[in-house]
Amino acid sequence: MPHAPRRAALRTLLQDLELDALLVTDLLNIRYLTGFTGSNAALLVHADSDAGSVFCTDGRYLTQSARQVPELERVIDRPCDRALAARAAKDGLRRTGFESHHVTVEALDALEDSAEGAELVRAPGLVERLRLIKDDAEVEALRMACAAADRALVDLIEHGGLRAGRTEREIARELENRMLDHGAAGPSFESIVAAGPNSAVPHHRPTDAALHPGDFVKLDFGALVDGYHSDMTRTLVLGRAADWQRELYDLVARSQAAGRAALTIGADVRDVDAASRKVIEDAGFGEQFLHGLGHGVGLQIHEAPALSKSGEGTLSAGMAVTVEPGVYLSGKGGVRIEDTLVVRDSAPELLTLTTKELVVV
Amino acid sequence: MPHAPRRAALRTLLQDLELDALLVTDLLNIRYLTGFTGSNAALLVHADSDAGSVFCTDGRYLTQSARQVPELERVIDRPCDRALAARAAKDGLRRTGFESHHVTVEALDALEDSAEGAELVRAPGLVERLRLIKDDAEVEALRMACAAADRALVDLIEHGGLRAGRTEREIARELENRMLDHGAAGPSFESIVAAGPNSAVPHHRPTDAALHPGDFVKLDFGALVDGYHSDMTRTLVLGRAADWQRELYDLVARSQAAGRAALTIGADVRDVDAASRKVIEDAGFGEQFLHGLGHGVGLQIHEAPALSKSGEGTLSAGMAVTVEPGVYLSGKGGVRIEDTLVVRDSAPELLTLTTKELVVV
Repeated sequence: MPHAPRRAALRTLLQDLELDALLVTDLLNIRYLTGFTGSNAALLVHADSDAGSVFCTDGRYLTQSARQVPELERVIDRPCDRALAARAAKDGLRRTGFESHHVTVEALDALEDSAEGAELVRAPGLVERLRLIKDDAEVEALRMACAAADRALVDLIEHGGLRAGRTEREIARELENRMLDHGAAGPSFESIVAAGPNSAVPHHRPTDAALHPGDFVKLDFGALVDGYHSDMTRTLVLGRAADWQRELYDLVARSQAAGRAALTIGADVRDVDAASRKVIEDAGFGEQFLHGLGHGVGLQIHEAPALSKSGEGTLSAGMAVTVEPGVYLSGKGGVRIEDTLVVRDSAPELLTLTTKELVVV
Repeated sequence: MPHAPRRAALRTLLQDLELDALLVTDLLNIRYLTGFTGSNAALLVHADSDAGSVFCTDGRYLTQSARQVPELERVIDRPCDRALAARAAKDGLRRTGFESHHVTVEALDALEDSAEGAELVRAPGLVERLRLIKDDAEVEALRMACAAADRALVDLIEHGGLRAGRTEREIARELENRMLDHGAAGPSFESIVAAGPNSAVPHHRPTDAALHPGDFVKLDFGALVDGYHSDMTRTLVLGRAADWQRELYDLVARSQAAGRAALTIGADVRDVDAASRKVIEDAGFGEQFLHGLGHGVGLQIHEAPALSKSGEGTLSAGMAVTVEPGVYLSGKGGVRIEDTLVVRDSAPELLTLTTKELVVV
């Protein structure tokens, strides 16, 4: 199980900060550190060893928590965060960190009441810092999530699902059902299916608009597997591609390739964005590339690092990101091409395996 | 549009608290007050009139916000919460409330930086207090959400979807697809389909277990319409009902009827729970009724009021709640029956219209 090494890595951070423990209250961070998937929990990670760590949930999850978190002391109580703040005080911990980027102003009052004078120290973003670098189990979940999306798109096309007369909404639904066929627990976000002029709207929601011959059809979707989110976009043409469509597609494909090539260890995230953006700017379409290049993916569909003009930081091996440039010609149509990849020592590892050649169906 | 009256009602609360404005940062509260459905926004509601109120979102929602929030001044900026805290200071507002039950400890620091010395005052739960009482537009959305779930279940049964050999997972998926057929944007939560001994697990997740003749089949599901969540449970029998199943079902049905009858204006929520629970306790199964009687529903699947032993408050006209007693016989099977209702001056209004007779399929 990957969870004990993750807690060990967190302990190193706690020791650096001279904290005796961290009270983890964000459910995704708890899932990352324990594997627990219920809707109510808290976790006290002791800085010395797991022998002093305590997991808390409520009575609904008695059986589930015994199965998912067998290696930690478990407490059944509620509210969990207050129970563990009290426990930290009772165990004589002097400096207990809390997730000040998740804990609300009102909730902190309640925690301080429960901690009875023991010091609660702001400790924002510690688990998120670990989550930036995906371990093998995480990459495997992302790989399966990407595969479910790839296969769903192949099925959709091979079964004639993309044809004139069908609506965006029907296609979105078929795509989501086909992801379930391939092992997804669900879509990883609200699928985007945008046909014709709608493809020029970056985050178009599927409507009852029908597909027409000659339309660009933009599909931005992903699958959820073991809590991990995949994210891919492909833009196809229905019937026969016009010259302007081939040219626009080729431009975005070259931009996307440049973005992928820039995913090297130590690269500034703004430079990755710039490498891809330059291709589009040089062609005179810089104003029509309306968004950042990409984002981290994992237990959240959008997480650090942001690959954008305003992003911060540099790339490290094991970061999972999307690369998704787009050009949107208002009233006419747009193209976006997006893969999910993992930054590696050598070339980035491509998890989205669907072709990036222009597909005409 | 119902949003202006909602903001007017909020203004009354602000005036009572001698606040000049409220900085609303919770997205559901913003949706309630404006109709905006995007993923990033903040709202400054002025205590005097909407002329001083300001809505903020980012560039992705330029068009959408113009359509959804035409009646308020709009600012395109990010981060939105900080932009509006600065605006409050610039407009000379002295006491600006903030949602201290949603704003994190770190976010408050940033807000105080932006507000440049203007006073930010804790103001938890104000919009939630309004959301307790559903207005006509909200009840209509809940009614449609309940109807989509009712119709999906009828379709499932009439098309032979509940039969021996099918798996819980297949049935959950068909039910969810059928809700989409009837206008749902999606399921309102992860559907529960629990067959045979699994029906004794209150929050069982659908598995690949197949249905067998004689099984109890418990279906707990709901639809999402216009952001509003319906919630219903029915327990059916496959093939032929045994005497113990009929007796157990009858007991839960009587308990559920008692709970519904107790939904009167001014009733203490604990007394509503007790009225339903007494029927089950008197039959000797009190220990097998493992959860609270019900909960509020609206923009969230679980919201105030809680109808339970530890709930607080009394009922008012316009509150939307579930009534869902259950008895769970470990290893054998369980029954839960759940409706969504609105508290009214006379009898409560039933939004879930599927029969509560025992259905044998």
